[in-house]
Amino acid sequence: MIEKITIIGMGLIGSSIARNVHQNKFAKEIVAADISEEVCQKVIALGISDYVTDDLARSVEEADLVILCVPVGAIDSVMSTIAPSLKEGAVLSDVGSVKGAVVESVTKHLPEHVDFVPAHPIAGTEFSGPEAGFAELFNGRWCIITPLPETSIKAVEVVTKMWEGCGSMVEIMGPRHHDLVLGITSHLPHLIAYTIVGTANDLEDDLKSEVIKFSASGFRDFTRIASSDPTMWRDVFLNNKEAVLEVLQRFTEDLTALQRAIRKGDGDYLYDKFHDTRAIRKAIIDQGQA
Amino acid sequence: MIEKITIIGMGLIGSSIARNVHQNKFAKEIVAADISEEVCQKVIALGISDYVTDDLARSVEEADLVILCVPVGAIDSVMSTIAPSLKEGAVLSDVGSVKGAVVESVTKHLPEHVDFVPAHPIAGTEFSGPEAGFAELFNGRWCIITPLPETSIKAVEVVTKMWEGCGSMVEIMGPRHHDLVLGITSHLPHLIAYTIVGTANDLEDDLKSEVIKFSASGFRDFTRIASSDPTMWRDVFLNNKEAVLEVLQRFTEDLTALQRAIRKGDGDYLYDKFHDTRAIRKAIIDQGQA
Repeated sequence: MIEKITIIGMGLIGSSIARNVHQNKFAKEIVAADISEEVCQKVIALGISDYVTDDLARSVEEADLVILCVPVGAIDSVMSTIAPSLKEGAVLSDVGSVKGAVVESVTKHLPEHVDFVPAHPIAGTEFSGPEAGFAELFNGRWCIITPLPETSIKAVEVVTKMWEGCGSMVEIMGPRHHDLVLGITSHLPHLIAYTIVGTANDLEDDLKSEVIKFSASGFRDFTRIASSDPTMWRDVFLNNKEAVLEVLQRFTEDLTALQRAIRKGDGDYLYDKFHDTRAIRKAIIDQGQA
Repeated sequence: MIEKITIIGMGLIGSSIARNVHQNKFAKEIVAADISEEVCQKVIALGISDYVTDDLARSVEEADLVILCVPVGAIDSVMSTIAPSLKEGAVLSDVGSVKGAVVESVTKHLPEHVDFVPAHPIAGTEFSGPEAGFAELFNGRWCIITPLPETSIKAVEVVTKMWEGCGSMVEIMGPRHHDLVLGITSHLPHLIAYTIVGTANDLEDDLKSEVIKFSASGFRDFTRIASSDPTMWRDVFLNNKEAVLEVLQRFTEDLTALQRAIRKGDGDYLYDKFHDTRAIRKAIIDQGQA
């Protein structure tokens, strides 16, 4: 399909993309790049790319498609390193969980002869690193693409085909709208999970060991979410501040209303709220995303 | 092992107990009781008990062991119905998620010749009703028993053996301490999950349909928890008010601190908090409760 793809950042997402394009022969040559020597060694051992390097600038030379799979906070510095080496007509994309801030960071450095296609695959696990990746990660999951006004249709098509080859379904929306939707479906849930596990972590030792022992009662689901990569998530909250603070405000108001109902012993209010939430679960199951 | 066991309330937990004692022959006779005619019909069809009735008082006559598997808010009325029919020397137990309030409701009605062994199996799913139960539900999970000062050792042993026969490990603690530990591991997580799914449910229709579509990014885990039985959970919050409000206060303080860090752009604070929570996940995995 294309001659050469370069994947920068070989963590969970980058290595899962590499496994897919390796298997489905989307590109004749796959270059894997990572600034960590240790990660590079692991990628070589996994055998999921044709070439592995820690020299980011050189890795993008002659590449038709470059995918940035680094934490959102590293995009700016990676772009300043690779921008001069991007070939004319290259397509650049990313996988960041935040789109508005990424668009800003990338376009600051983007050469005129390169097309940028911001993208975000809605898939992941709580594990990190190249060994955590697997080819089926994107199967049946959405990938959101948020093209800029100046992005060419051809570039969007290349990135769409790559994601469809990974088993994803592609959806187009604007970057700001993406950040609001994901603020609700992803960033807020992670923030809440980190908070509740942090609250437990601050308990006295006896109580903490019992919380771990009896975690099966609901808590353990939060610990899974709260064991996600801390660097990635720090960057998400620093770069989607506005949307996160907005949805957090709504959440806090709703929590305060439930708190008041508990204090007043208002069983009807609690029952109604707990009953209505079942409809959303049913809709998710019906859409095959459960 | 014993002659006759009566299980009152044939939902997820009650029907799962019935399946176990049916399979492992813990009792010669299993009586299933439920005030709902519809539930009784389902239990007859499932064939997991020797006798099914909607007459709670008659169901406990001659029973050696009676297990209350009704929502915590129904305990008081069930006790006033069955207390006069409990035989001398019978052992009474329950499965309520709250222990302090249950002990109060039960002891108010408890005849002197009956031993009460409060218990709480730490197991469940988001599904409800007799058809949702299954024999393996309690396998490898803890069951907390909170005996009263007057509970006989023999009665505790009977209930312990029943739970060990269901595959559970039994732990003893005081009712108030149970309510604090479960307030953190179970009640707070459920309250938070109900809140966040409720917040999403209140969104404008377009945004809500996108939240459902892109739920795989974290939100869907909360919807699973928030689809648990609304009556059961209303009763939990009404009956463990003190502990829930206490842990909710700690949670809100911690959330406010993270909110402030996001607003100020304090990446180090966010990273440290997100990093520390991984240790709890690791401990849960190490203890085989993940």
